[in-house]
Amino acid sequence: MKVINYKDIEAAPVRMDGARGVTIRWLIARDDGAPGFAMRLFEIDPGGTTPLHKHAQEHEVFIIEGAGTVWRGDEAVPVTPGTAIFVPPQETHCFTNTGDGVMRFLCMVPLEEKTCG
Amino acid sequence: MKVINYKDIEAAPVRMDGARGVTIRWLIARDDGAPGFAMRLFEIDPGGTTPLHKHAQEHEVFIIEGAGTVWRGDEAVPVTPGTAIFVPPQETHCFTNTGDGVMRFLCMVPLEEKTCG
Repeated sequence: MKVINYKDIEAAPVRMDGARGVTIRWLIARDDGAPGFAMRLFEIDPGGTTPLHKHAQEHEVFIIEGAGTVWRGDEAVPVTPGTAIFVPPQETHCFTNTGDGVMRFLCMVPLEEKTCG
Repeated sequence: MKVINYKDIEAAPVRMDGARGVTIRWLIARDDGAPGFAMRLFEIDPGGTTPLHKHAQEHEVFIIEGAGTVWRGDEAVPVTPGTAIFVPPQETHCFTNTGDGVMRFLCMVPLEEKTCG
């Protein structure tokens, strides 16, 4: 069993095209023995954003702190602490910090070797 | 895309043997189209606990609020907001509220139809 506070894991800058003021911490990952999916914690600075993109992997997200939006179709939907978001595979999305403080959220994704066949 | 605050989902009592003062809300589940894993939010009353048990499915847990312990081997490890916990398959575990207020945490689990073969 792994028990760790997220603050004890180093935050790495997200350097993808379109990302601005975003860091990631891998809380539970393949190296921990996780067989199916991973837990990451993202922090976005005020005015920052993740890239507007889509991909084959779903996301399961939970907002812990801050105020922001998630892009859904052609609208920016407000999210606050306690908001859960399911992003299906191949749905375009991004998360943007619209508040004055840090925006902090969990984002779970499947691990690729879980695919069958 | 599903966007919902956990407070807008009904909390159901957990009636398993050994559970005391525990509720569950399914935030992201099979019916939402989640292909691989689910997100649940648990609340434990002061003095309450989940059952001490083990099973084939791993857990990925993140403490949102409150103070408690997770049973690991033969010790009760303190957990606080910001603690992430990976419970591997078949490891005995339980979560207990040792504080004065509600203990609230996310618990992700694989969905069974994801198994291969």
